Amino acid sequence: MFEIRTRARDSLARTGTLHLAHGDVRTPAFVPLATRGAVKTLDPLDVQGLGYEMVLGNTFHLLLSPGPELVAQFGGLHEFMRWPGPIITDSGGFQVFSMGHGSVADEIKSRRPPKTGRAQTGGAILEISEAGVRFRSYLDGGERLLTPESSMAVQASLGSDIALVLDECTPFHVTRDYTARSTERTHRWLGRCLSWHEQYGPPGQCVYGIVQGGVEPDLRAESAEVVAGSGCPGVAIGGSLGQDKAQMHEVVKWSTAVLERVAPERPRHLLGIGEIDDLIAGVEVGIDTFDCAVPTRLARHGVALVPDPAGRWRVDLAKARWRDSRAPVLEDCPCPTCRAGHTRGYLHYLYRAGETTGARLLTLHNLSFVARLMEDLRAAIDAGRLAEVAGALRAGAAPMGAAAQA
Amino acid sequence: MFEIRTRARDSLARTGTLHLAHGDVRTPAFVPLATRGAVKTLDPLDVQGLGYEMVLGNTFHLLLSPGPELVAQFGGLHEFMRWPGPIITDSGGFQVFSMGHGSVADEIKSRRPPKTGRAQTGGAILEISEAGVRFRSYLDGGERLLTPESSMAVQASLGSDIALVLDECTPFHVTRDYTARSTERTHRWLGRCLSWHEQYGPPGQCVYGIVQGGVEPDLRAESAEVVAGSGCPGVAIGGSLGQDKAQMHEVVKWSTAVLERVAPERPRHLLGIGEIDDLIAGVEVGIDTFDCAVPTRLARHGVALVPDPAGRWRVDLAKARWRDSRAPVLEDCPCPTCRAGHTRGYLHYLYRAGETTGARLLTLHNLSFVARLMEDLRAAIDAGRLAEVAGALRAGAAPMGAAAQA
Repeated sequence: MFEIRTRARDSLARTGTLHLAHGDVRTPAFVPLATRGAVKTLDPLDVQGLGYEMVLGNTFHLLLSPGPELVAQFGGLHEFMRWPGPIITDSGGFQVFSMGHGSVADEIKSRRPPKTGRAQTGGAILEISEAGVRFRSYLDGGERLLTPESSMAVQASLGSDIALVLDECTPFHVTRDYTARSTERTHRWLGRCLSWHEQYGPPGQCVYGIVQGGVEPDLRAESAEVVAGSGCPGVAIGGSLGQDKAQMHEVVKWSTAVLERVAPERPRHLLGIGEIDDLIAGVEVGIDTFDCAVPTRLARHGVALVPDPAGRWRVDLAKARWRDSRAPVLEDCPCPTCRAGHTRGYLHYLYRAGETTGARLLTLHNLSFVARLMEDLRAAIDAGRLAEVAGALRAGAAPMGAAAQA
Repeated sequence: MFEIRTRARDSLARTGTLHLAHGDVRTPAFVPLATRGAVKTLDPLDVQGLGYEMVLGNTFHLLLSPGPELVAQFGGLHEFMRWPGPIITDSGGFQVFSMGHGSVADEIKSRRPPKTGRAQTGGAILEISEAGVRFRSYLDGGERLLTPESSMAVQASLGSDIALVLDECTPFHVTRDYTARSTERTHRWLGRCLSWHEQYGPPGQCVYGIVQGGVEPDLRAESAEVVAGSGCPGVAIGGSLGQDKAQMHEVVKWSTAVLERVAPERPRHLLGIGEIDDLIAGVEVGIDTFDCAVPTRLARHGVALVPDPAGRWRVDLAKARWRDSRAPVLEDCPCPTCRAGHTRGYLHYLYRAGETTGARLLTLHNLSFVARLMEDLRAAIDAGRLAEVAGALRAGAAPMGAAAQA
């Protein structure tokens, strides 16, 4: 199911191909979010045109609406959203647990200061037990129970190529003891997910286990061994990854270093991480696939991804200083938006005017930027030049993409 | 500037080509709205891909934001929004006058019951005088004066291919006397617009005068003669067109019948009308171009255009009855949305989920539907078969478009 092509000599990085039920995915790859069954502002042809081979659907949102039964009636999520390529679905756990320890999870995932409460969703976690997690739907206020088995059943109905097991995503601020007990429960849930899937899982669907263990090196190592030992064909890394980027990169490496030893041939997915510097660092420590809301969410907030030696990789076109700018989003950028000659000033205006065309144009730019970055990293690994290429990108070089390499 | 190819023998319909500064427009043509400098949810390549040759920018909205000075700095509206083809701009009058007698104008244009007030815009008309119209901006609350000269100046800054003169759009409920006096003032404004344009208008920009006169046959006839006599290269038909579709079609025909006699070679634009039956009827009475929010606005409300012998030409996919439907929006439809295999159920879901991808997919469908309708009407006129083709469309035949005719 996973074929490794090139292993870097001086890092854990590798290139390969995931052979999935709906097609191949060249790795390392970024996976855009089709959270509610659509990549926001785009249609499937747009996403394919940008070079993406896989998207991620959110089990939690699709469970609440339109519901797995309806999606199954349509022949599964591929048919429902008319995406012909592979789809990965998460377990639904992250969103549920975000309602519980929401503010901290938000902080971890998006590096924003904690917010107070999650009143905007109206959802709430009611109880975490051995059985699973009971929560209140943000849509209708009804109580729901998500269990390892029900998460797998929903993902079976969705018919994704890769399903993720249910895990508890522990926040950063809990005790070592809580993290240890939670990680053990996550391992028991892993066993239940795999048992369910063995009996009822749809043919061709792969299950990824999830490494937890918070910011404790020994718990991470143990979790990586347990997940690898469970025999699941792929491994995801989730949960609290630390309080800053340096710690996050370290925590990821703890996990991949163990996986490199105990399950070197299995694909590794890093959950919910996708800022540009994190993608480069993740590839260097041996991550094969990433999913993240950042490129598409930034676009909807008027922010464009650009090369940046200062390491922020973004320009906020919502700011008044871009009002008069006739500069392109990015000079010589081959994305559909820049190729059409759209200016920073026009995108600033569209954002301020609330025109969704602006969100679309920036989504196209941002996803094209990330696609080219991943192409460059893959080509660099294959050419034995990852350190050099990563260095140039960090120094402000623009990702070139396949066209430049052809 | 306007070349007529075929005149129908049994109606006022004709085909032709508008030769404009930024290219040609085959007529009869529908002109999609790029109200604030973007066709909502689409980018220019989408609009071209659907077969459209001209779009309409709204002077009123662009005047308030980003302002004509900024658009001029970018080299005009074509450069600002990166639309390479012809652009028509309205005078800004319709939106201003809608704030004054808003509810009635709304009723007339969109056949909806009158609303009370226009509090949502925060704008208001302050005074209509010989000088022009003074109003309060809905954006900043500031007072603005729109005059015949300032409207032309704004449109000069925008650099449109076709500029419309400032007119007072009288509502349906005013007296004959008010309509008569208003129409006379509109004629004086026409003279001022043409004088200003002669001195300061950008090269290559054509000015269309506007026929007013409410629902009074003699006032309409007189207005058509005055506008034709003013020497402006094109004629638009605006204002109150009656209380129902039958009356509207009649009022339009009063105007085009006179124009056919006094200015048969000049192009005729029907302002703000674009439901499917109105397009067919408008073509039959000799309208060359139409603009209207209906196809794009319906899409954003979950409504798809479809053939319909009952004459409503629409299906409301927001309704719960479509939740399970695996049917396409329209069988054998060649639009990008139907070609990609999207179902009524998926579009229903996207609309309910608030995903803008849904609005985009329906906008593509609706504009494709209208483009094919106009192609069919042009081909029918050229083939001397308009009555037959219009009859078939009214009986529920699907518009085929150029592909089918090739």
